[in-house]
Order: sequence, then C-alpha cells, then structure tokens
Amino acid sequence: MSSHTELGVAVKNIPRADSAVVDGLGKMGAATVHEAQGRSGQLDTGIRPIQQDVCISGSAVTVLAQPGDNWMVHVALELCEPGDVLVVTTTSPNSDGFFGDLLATSAMAAGVRGLVIEAGTRDTVELRKMGFPVWSRTVSIKGTVKNTLGSVNVPIVCAGQYIIPGDVIVADDDGICVVPRTRAESVLAAAEARIGNEAETRQQLADGVMGLDIYDMRTRLEEAGLRYLDSAEDLE
Amino acid sequence: MSSHTELGVAVKNIPRADSAVVDGLGKMGAATVHEAQGRSGQLDTGIRPIQQDVCISGSAVTVLAQPGDNWMVHVALELCEPGDVLVVTTTSPNSDGFFGDLLATSAMAAGVRGLVIEAGTRDTVELRKMGFPVWSRTVSIKGTVKNTLGSVNVPIVCAGQYIIPGDVIVADDDGICVVPRTRAESVLAAAEARIGNEAETRQQLADGVMGLDIYDMRTRLEEAGLRYLDSAEDLE
Amino acid sequence: MSSHTELGVAVKNIPRADSAVVDGLGKMGAATVHEAQGRSGQLDTGIRPIQQDVCISGSAVTVLAQPGDNWMVHVALELCEPGDVLVVTTTSPNSDGFFGDLLATSAMAAGVRGLVIEAGTRDTVELRKMGFPVWSRTVSIKGTVKNTLGSVNVPIVCAGQYIIPGDVIVADDDGICVVPRTRAESVLAAAEARIGNEAETRQQLADGVMGLDIYDMRTRLEEAGLRYLDSAEDLE
Amino acid sequence: MSSHTELGVAVKNIPRADSAVVDGLGKMGAATVHEAQGRSGQLDTGIRPIQQDVCISGSAVTVLAQPGDNWMVHVALELCEPGDVLVVTTTSPNSDGFFGDLLATSAMAAGVRGLVIEAGTRDTVELRKMGFPVWSRTVSIKGTVKNTLGSVNVPIVCAGQYIIPGDVIVADDDGICVVPRTRAESVLAAAEARIGNEAETRQQLADGVMGLDIYDMRTRLEEAGLRYLDSAEDLE
Amino acid sequence: MSSHTELGVAVKNIPRADSAVVDGLGKMGAATVHEAQGRSGQLDTGIRPIQQDVCISGSAVTVLAQPGDNWMVHVALELCEPGDVLVVTTTSPNSDGFFGDLLATSAMAAGVRGLVIEAGTRDTVELRKMGFPVWSRTVSIKGTVKNTLGSVNVPIVCAGQYIIPGDVIVADDDGICVVPRTRAESVLAAAEARIGNEAETRQQLADGVMGLDIYDMRTRLEEAGLRYLDSAEDLE
Amino acid sequence: MSSHTELGVAVKNIPRADSAVVDGLGKMGAATVHEAQGRSGQLDTGIRPIQQDVCISGSAVTVLAQPGDNWMVHVALELCEPGDVLVVTTTSPNSDGFFGDLLATSAMAAGVRGLVIEAGTRDTVELRKMGFPVWSRTVSIKGTVKNTLGSVNVPIVCAGQYIIPGDVIVADDDGICVVPRTRAESVLAAAEARIGNEAETRQQLADGVMGLDIYDMRTRLEEAGLRYLDSAEDLE
Repeated sequence: MSSHTELGVAVKNIPRADSAVVDGLGKMGAATVHEAQGRSGQLDTGIRPIQQDVCISGSAVTVLAQPGDNWMVHVALELCEPGDVLVVTTTSPNSDGFFGDLLATSAMAAGVRGLVIEAGTRDTVELRKMGFPVWSRTVSIKGTVKNTLGSVNVPIVCAGQYIIPGDVIVADDDGICVVPRTRAESVLAAAEARIGNEAETRQQLADGVMGLDIYDMRTRLEEAGLRYLDSAEDLE
Repeated sequence: MSSHTELGVAVKNIPRADSAVVDGLGKMGAATVHEAQGRSGQLDTGIRPIQQDVCISGSAVTVLAQPGDNWMVHVALELCEPGDVLVVTTTSPNSDGFFGDLLATSAMAAGVRGLVIEAGTRDTVELRKMGFPVWSRTVSIKGTVKNTLGSVNVPIVCAGQYIIPGDVIVADDDGICVVPRTRAESVLAAAEARIGNEAETRQQLADGVMGLDIYDMRTRLEEAGLRYLDSAEDLE
Repeated sequence: MSSHTELGVAVKNIPRADSAVVDGLGKMGAATVHEAQGRSGQLDTGIRPIQQDVCISGSAVTVLAQPGDNWMVHVALELCEPGDVLVVTTTSPNSDGFFGDLLATSAMAAGVRGLVIEAGTRDTVELRKMGFPVWSRTVSIKGTVKNTLGSVNVPIVCAGQYIIPGDVIVADDDGICVVPRTRAESVLAAAEARIGNEAETRQQLADGVMGLDIYDMRTRLEEAGLRYLDSAEDLE
Repeated sequence: MSSHTELGVAVKNIPRADSAVVDGLGKMGAATVHEAQGRSGQLDTGIRPIQQDVCISGSAVTVLAQPGDNWMVHVALELCEPGDVLVVTTTSPNSDGFFGDLLATSAMAAGVRGLVIEAGTRDTVELRKMGFPVWSRTVSIKGTVKNTLGSVNVPIVCAGQYIIPGDVIVADDDGICVVPRTRAESVLAAAEARIGNEAETRQQLADGVMGLDIYDMRTRLEEAGLRYLDSAEDLE
Repeated sequence: MSSHTELGVAVKNIPRADSAVVDGLGKMGAATVHEAQGRSGQLDTGIRPIQQDVCISGSAVTVLAQPGDNWMVHVALELCEPGDVLVVTTTSPNSDGFFGDLLATSAMAAGVRGLVIEAGTRDTVELRKMGFPVWSRTVSIKGTVKNTLGSVNVPIVCAGQYIIPGDVIVADDDGICVVPRTRAESVLAAAEARIGNEAETRQQLADGVMGLDIYDMRTRLEEAGLRYLDSAEDLE
Repeated sequence: MSSHTELGVAVKNIPRADSAVVDGLGKMGAATVHEAQGRSGQLDTGIRPIQQDVCISGSAVTVLAQPGDNWMVHVALELCEPGDVLVVTTTSPNSDGFFGDLLATSAMAAGVRGLVIEAGTRDTVELRKMGFPVWSRTVSIKGTVKNTLGSVNVPIVCAGQYIIPGDVIVADDDGICVVPRTRAESVLAAAEARIGNEAETRQQLADGVMGLDIYDMRTRLEEAGLRYLDSAEDLE
C-alpha cells in the first residue's frame, strides 16, 4: 500500500475489528486507551465534543472531503454499518458546517455512533437532543456545496493522526484516540489491565497515601537530584 | 453613503425591520437564515455563546469601541429600543471584559435581547442566571475604562461582517448571521420555504432512504467520475 | 530575591495569607478582585474552566514542570495544605494532560481546592463528578512521563502572571486572578467596598435609570466631543 | 445600497479616485494614511507582505471568491485598469494558494500594481523577481479549482475592513490601509500636513530633546497622577 | 503494515527513490509537484523556511521525537545517506529548538540536504550562512534534552501528512510537498508535462491575452450563471 | 518586594549590570545564554525580530503600557541610559503599533540599543534603515493614543518572562533571553565555557564523527532500550 491518497474513489468494503473488542475499548475511555497502546493515537486537542458526558467507540469510515463541500459524507453514509464512526477530514483547513441534523438522522438510521470531523458542524442543539455525538474543530452556520469529489474509505490524516478505514475510534469528553484495527484486541487487553490496577490505587490516594510512596518515586527523585529546601530563603 | 467609519458620533434614530419579520427570522435559526439568504452573512466562528440552547433575533444597535474602553456601550444603551441586539466591535483586537451583569441589567430594562461582541464579556454566571444571552470572542475578568470616544449606530465590521444599524441579527448555539434590513422580509420567506421542505426529508432519512437518492446525487457523482471500489486492494 | 527560577528544588514551607482573607476573596469573584486591586493580576483568558458555576480561592502552591512531565505535581501534593490551590506551568508550551482523577483524589485528600494549569488536563468527566475544579488551557488524553526535574514552590510565570508561592488565587467561570499575599487583606477590603456599592446601582439600572446618569457621564462625553446625530443622513 | 453581498455578478465599471490622489497617498505610506484619516481603515495585521521595502497604492478591484476557488480572480483581471490593486477575500477562511506567477504575469500586463488577499499565494520567489507585490495571510503550494461563482467588484469585507470597489488601497511593509474613494482627497491633504510636521520633530528628537517636552506631555502626566520614584525601594 | 507507530526503534535501511527522479522533482518546485500528483501531499502552511530562494528535494529520513527531546535526531543522522532530508515530528506539539549549527554541521557532513521539522529550530543566522536549509514551525532559543526514546525511520504524520521513510520531500519558499516513493517517477513525468505547457501560456498572458480566453472559461462562466453588470447601480 | 505591579509610577534609578558583562552576554547569543543559565529566561517564540542578522544585549528599562496607549514609552525614554534596551508589555493583549521611527530617533539619541515589545511596531522599513533593532509580536500601522497611565521601571511579565528593571536582555534572530541582573556575571562565565567547548566538537562533526560517539550516547540509548531494526519489515 502506498501512502498516496487517491481522490474520486469510494471503497465499499472495509475490514472491521470484532464488535466486542470495539465495544470494550469504548468502555475504557480515550485516555486509558491512549496510554494502553503506548501513548500513541491521540487526535489534535483542538477537536472538541459538542456534548458532555458521552463516550463512544466504533469502526472508522473515513471521508476525505474538499473544503466547503460535504458531498462525500453523503456517499459515505451509504457505506456505513451499525457500529461505525464517521471520520472526516478536508484537503485543506476549513471551518464550514459539514454536518447537521438531517445527516445525523440518516446516520442514526444506519447505526452510525458518531462523527469526528476536522472541520465544522452545525445544528448542535438538535444533535444534542437527538443524542448523536460529534467532535469537531468548529461550530459553523455555513453549509456546504456538493460539487467536487473527494474519497471515502481511503487512508487519511485527520487531526494529526493517520487513520485507515476500519481502525477503531474511541472518543469522549477528553478527546479522541485511534487504535489500528490490527492492534485493537491487544490494546483492549492492556487497557483492561490498567483499569484493574487503578481501583486500589485510587482508594490509597483517597486515604491520603502519597503518590510518591505508592509509585515509589522518592529514590528516583533523589537520584535525579531534587533538593528539598525548608523555605524560599534557601533559594539561590 | 461612504464606507468611512466616523468616530465620536452617536446616531439616535435608526430604521428597523418590521418586528414580525425580526421575530420570524429568530424562529428559523442562524444556519437556516444564512442558507436562505444565499449563504452569506455569517459572523466569524470564533464568536461563541456563553449559554446553551438559546436563539435570539433583533435589530442591530452597533457600537464601535476603543480597545479596553466600554464608554460607548453606555451611550448605546440609551438609544436601544425593545427588540434590539447590541453589536459591539473594537478599533483593534481586544479581549477585555466589556460587559457584565450591571450593563445587562440596564440592557434588559431597555428590552435589549442580547449582545454580540468581538471582544470579551464577564459575569457569565450571572448573565446566564439573568437570562441575558451573549456571544463573545473571549470571557475575561478584566474590566474596561471610559476614556476615549468611539461611535454608536454607525456601520461597522464585526467579526468579518459589515453591519448597518438596523440590520437583523440572528444568533444561536451554532453562531450568528446578519441579514440586511432591506432584505429581511424576503430572506424570511426563503427561510420558511426551506423549513417546510425539511420535514418530509427528515422522515425519509429516518426511514433509511439514502440522501443519495432523495437528493438525486447518483448521476452527478457518476458524471463527476466517482469510482466505487470493492476493497482497499483496488486502490492505486 | 532574584527573578531567577531555580530548577530541581522543592520548597517545603511557604507563607500563606490568613485563611479568612483567602476565603473572603473567594466570595468576591475573580473580576471584582481584579478590579479591586487596580485592574491587575489577570491570568491569560485562554485558561478556561472545565466546569460551570464554581468559584474558588486558595493559596498558591506553584509547580514548574517540564513539557510532558508531571513528576513535580506528585512532589507538590505532599507539600499542600488544606486551602491550597495548585498552580502549574511548564518550561515551554505544552498541551498534554498533566492531571486526572487519580491526582485529583490525592489532592482532595490533602484539602486542595483546585488546579490552575498552563497546559492540559484529562478525566474531565470524573473531575466534574468529584467536584474537583480545574482551569486549564487544553483538555488532552495524552498522559505524561516522570523523568525530568522541575521545581515546586518557586516563583513562576503562569499564563502571563508572576506568581509567588502563597499568593492568593481566585478562579471562577470568568477567569483567574492572582493577589500578592502581602496585599490580600487590603485587596479584600477594597473588593468588599465595591460589592457594597453595586447593589443600589443594580436596582437603579433595573428601574431604567441610565448608566449615563448614574455614573455622571454626560458632561465628560460632551467635553470629549461626542456628537449626537438625529439619523445616518447626518454622517459625513 | 444594501449591505447585501450578491454572488454571481461582475460589475464592469467602477468609479476610481483621481490618479494623482491615489499616487499621492502611496507616497505617504500606510501608517501615515491610517493616522490621517482618523485612525481607521487598517486591515488585519495577519495579512503580511511577501516582499520587503515596497509601498504601493491603487484603486481596489474587489473579488469575493469561494474557498479553494480562484475563478473570480480570472474574471477580475479583465476588469482591471492600470493603477488598480486586486483585493481578494473568501466566503469562509481559506489558506490555499489563489495566485501565482501566471496570474501575476497577466496582472502586470494589465497594469495592476499588486494584490491584497485574505487567503494564500504561491510562487513567491518568482513574484519577488517579477516585482509584483503581494500581501497575503498565508503562502501555500495548494492551487485552486475554478468551479463555483463568487463576485467581482461588489463591496466586500477583507481582513476586517469594508471595501467598496474603487476605494484606495495603500500597502507597505507595515500593513495595509483602505481609504474610502470619496475621502481620498481630504485624507491625502491631512497626510501631507502630518508629514510636513514630522521633519522638524525628527531633528529635535535626534538632538536629544525629549518627546515629553516637544509634545508638552509633562503637565498632562502630572494631572493624570504619574508619580516619579527615585528607586524601586519606593514602590508599594 | 499497520498504521501503528512503534516507539523505541530505529530502522537502518530504507528504500529510496531513484536519485535522478528525486533531483528531477526538486527542479519542479513544491507547488508544481503538488499539482502534478493530483493536489495532494501538502504539509501544513505553518511550517515556514528560515531562508529565502532555496528549493531542495530528498529522501525522507523520518524522526518521531518526544517534546523537548532531540535524542532521536542524533540517532537519525547516523542512518542518513547523501541526498536525504530529515523530517522530524513530535508526539505532541512542541516549539523548542531541536536543531542548531552543530547538528547541521553533522548533517552536511553526511550529505543531508535539509530539515523539515514540526517544531522549532535555532542558530538561524549560522544555518543560513552554512547554506543548510530548514523549514520549521518556530524559531526558538530553547534547546532540548536527550532523555526519552522516540523512533527513527518509522512512518510518521508530520504537519498533517503521512510520511513513509524514503518518500520524496520537495521544499521551497512556498512550502513543502511529500511524494510517495512508489509514485515519484510518475509524478515527475506529470510535473514535467505541466512545466512544458506553462511557457507558452506565460508569453500569451504577458502579451495581454486574457486567461478567460486562454483557458476557455467564458462559456463555463455563462453556464454557471455569471452576470456582468455595467455598474454598482445594477446590484440588487 | 511584592509581586504587585503598581500603576502610575516611574522609577528613575535602576541598578544595572556591569557594562562589560552586558556586552559579553551579547557576544554569546540568546540561545547560548539561555542554555548557560540552566535553560531558563526564554521569551515567547511569538516575539520576532523585524530585521535579520542582528544581536544585541542591554539593561532592561521596563514599560507597562495600556492597550493602544504608548504614553509610558515617552516617559521611559527620558529614564534610559546608553546601553539600555526598552522592554514593553501591555496590561492586556494588544497588536497596535506602539513604536515607530520618531521614537526610534529619540531612543538612538539616548543610546538605547533596541526594543522588545509584546505588542506591535511600525515604520519597519525606516527602523531597519536606521539600524534600530526591534523584536515585536506584530507589525501594525495603527498608532496609539496617550491617555492612560501605566508604569516605567516596575517588574513586569513580558512574553512569559518576569523581568526586573536592570535585568540583562539578549536578543538575536533566534529569539530573546532575559538574565537576572544578579546572575549576569556567572551566566556569562558559563556561556563562555560552553562556547569554548563547541569549536572542537564542530570540527569533529564536520569530519564526519558521529554525535552518538562524541557525546557518548550509545550506551545510554541501549539502556533506554532502543532497538535497531534492519528494515521496515521488522516493525511490529
């Protein structure tokens, strides 16, 4: 496979991760998944949710769109399956509102779980009411035209991450993480291991045990040369 | 009329659109109004509401202020009528908090419906409690002085749009649109026509009919050269 | 004291303002405190709360961290006392998620009232549920390492303000203000005076009295040369 | 005239200011012209020249283009006359390269003096060699399509200023100022008066006379309450 | 190949395009190459050259670095061959100065043609004097540490483009374009074809022939509905 | 000393570092000085020089100005001595042109070596011709008023650094570094030591010796777990 992004094509069939794995990653949350896969896969922090307290996961159906033109989103919707997440980027930066309540109605009918878009969305009040979650860079009243081809289900770079159709998207209030499809299962296992460890730690911290002790940091801090001073008067 | 923006003047009487038209536009929402007037009139997407789920419309009372100086907002309030919206810009970019709960109290007493400001606001908790809606670029604790003249009710550029006093402002969660006063009636008619068409479309989409079919896109996509591929293996 | 910021040190004991003064400032809100101390002390408006309708005050425990490294936050927590606020900056701009629900658990156990950070936070859903308030520049799923020393309780510049450990932080929905510890008492007095004056003014404004009259602005406006025009036709 | 911006039109004939006045303004420089017309007319500081040490003036031929589409620039070139300056904006923010050496060749053949664009340019090496000056927000290798209509010679907002075709543009290393056509003559007179005053002042300053004395600021500073302290020890 | 980016590895041998092809692309310039490969491959416009009038091409040796840590650049230099271009990105946004005159000395000794970095550089005066070209997001005096592993010669996303080691980089004053290695030859052919066509067009334009005629746009404009108006009075 | 920034004062006498030390630091360059003082003191990278190939050092005369108001710069000039550098910040972000050729004439007459300003400058062509170097955030044609007091020679935060009057400023093409006055001598010594070490290293690197060997990195890389792979096929 070349890293070339072909324009004017729509790939109908894409491989997807096992649905239990996809759902399992969604229960972990984006930050845990990011950590579990070796601190990689984070989309740019400028992509923000339009809603609160929602976490989704799904298989990426990718859209490469032209600025100000959402034609390819329509093409993509027909290729979606239940459990998918639309992931949209543009060939150059654009803030227009590519997506609104009508497209969301269609997406929900197809079982799409949400939208991640490196551009703008609109109808945010209705989208929240409908329960269709969106992560976007902007909110914009400016709609789009349907004039120029892009592509559907080709590998794209969206918000700084390379995303292959069928990769797993995990998105919540904290941001978005992409997990390569072929690693989804092992990342889920690593994430579950992390979650398991946290419960006991949380209780200890709540009881006032210092993280310095729980994580055994004191020796390393000393080795690194940290000097404790009694007061500001001891500063150079 | 010249495009010159005079400083040091306050125009007392401005023409306003018919109140039924203004109110009608407010029921359409900013995105629909933007579309209905030929996709124009959008204010910059960086101006964001401090509240959720509020849509207003009103006649623009314009303020050209100096950076860090809200003197002209006080002058403007005396010239407002019920149904107006304050629209404030500055002579150079400024993030200070020009507007807070005291000014909002005064504005509400005058029947002002809201504020759109290419600068900052403060007292956001109180403003939300009072139900006085604000769209601003920043939220800032820094108040302003009252030292240098600007103007009231002169044509201004605010957030990328040219706004003549009396133009109609429609603002909601998605953003802000300005409608020239002289076009308000025809834009309302166009917007109402759009809304009417959407109900049936929405039902079809909810039933799973593809937008590609409803909007008859398949032929155009084919003419534009879209190629459907069975799988990623068919990519170049 | 030099303005030099020493790396690799942690100061154990810092002076704090009287707790009644700290709490009193918290009742005033950040904007009033900013105004009361002569319109100074505002942190950059890009630092935003992750929650709504929360106002805190506390004594600053300062952290100078390396980009992508929250080791010093762990060191700082051990040095916190009830009523403190963590104030974290980095040696160069960084958007990573330095702080999450585990650190918040530890912080709450220590009586820390909140976090102000010139970087990112994560676990925002949990933090809101726990009631631990945070003001940050970004929200990010990317965690941090624990490899390189910074300092704790040294003077820092955070979001454009110079902050000495023990200075008082006031943070709410509108932003953040720092009050030098040695001025906290006099600033509180000035703030209380301001608040007292506002009640009557608010009632007058609600009754429709013009701010132009309450603040006696008409003469100054005339002296400054403001010209009232009857209509736009009178513009140059 | 309405503030409505019509799409799909090209106005063939526009009024222009007297060429001696246009040229005269070009000799003043953008900052002096801005000051002379009452500190108004400044385009956003983010629009920067791609060359150094060039100052131009000319009559604005305006282009409202769609994002990523420079079709209207081609239409505009046919309507240009010697002494014009192309002023291009887009219906939503766009960074693409709308203009390169081929368009510049055509523009120079038509006597166009330069380009001001709220978007991107390319072929900057060639443009500098050709001596065709450009002020743009970005430099971008991404070319544009020719698919969607905008307008030529309609009033536009470009970089925060309202510009009517035929208004005078003055652009140099410091930025860009627009002068309404109807005020061009009076602004030139005011600018010339300013320039005249500066020579003597400059000599005095070079001789070490303080601006405080030349501009007679000492009394006003005292009235404003400025306190001179002998040393930092006298600070509060 | 998975889209997973592995940390802690350095790949010693990478495939490279034919050197004649690489050099040929460098003669075309970034904008022409971008156009020739179907308007794809553009790196973000915020990455700017520190020098003027320089165009390079080369095979990408990729570096994935940690914020504020240039250790992997040292590792990469040993793996470079004459004709390579260093392409550096970080795991989260960082503005530090990763590269200066010492690294440039080493790079030039290895035959490296330049650096493209989604972060900062320093010693810009010396780099210009040495003739080592750099494209970076920032210029920064802040050096970096050498503490945490990243990777060398793994696929990366740099400035919005997915870059596989051995892909061809073309960078000049207008920006940067990446060409997938496997397409380099065909893109070069397409670029050469474009260049050939331009000479005649340029002469016609210089002679005053309208682009509207050369590119045969008049019919399409008419079909699209462009209306020519005699004057502004004919606007709606 | 409190961290309070008093408004409305001008401190006449400030301590300055030994002029030989100040000049010595200027010969080191900003990046070397930054490194020599423990990687601290860097001003924000967004403050850029308007000229190339200039390095200055000097004693900071600080100005805290109001947005859009350069009155305090006039006050400051009278308090400057030969060898000083003006360092200007504003009470909230502002892009206006605070400084032009007249002020530069006065500054040069007083022996001032340059200007560092967290705001805008103008007359950049003339300033370059005069040889008066400026580092600013913006270039702007918009002049300023002289209406509201700030302060001169009080401690300020400028571009993210706390600067006490008399601290040493080193500024060049790469950026700006502030050295606390009381540390100037020791920082100079450390910087000179660094420079001395570099000559030999540079020669080795030019001869093709790897930095990995010169800096003895191979063992540490191995300990950190770096794995060399023969080719991309060995990636996970």
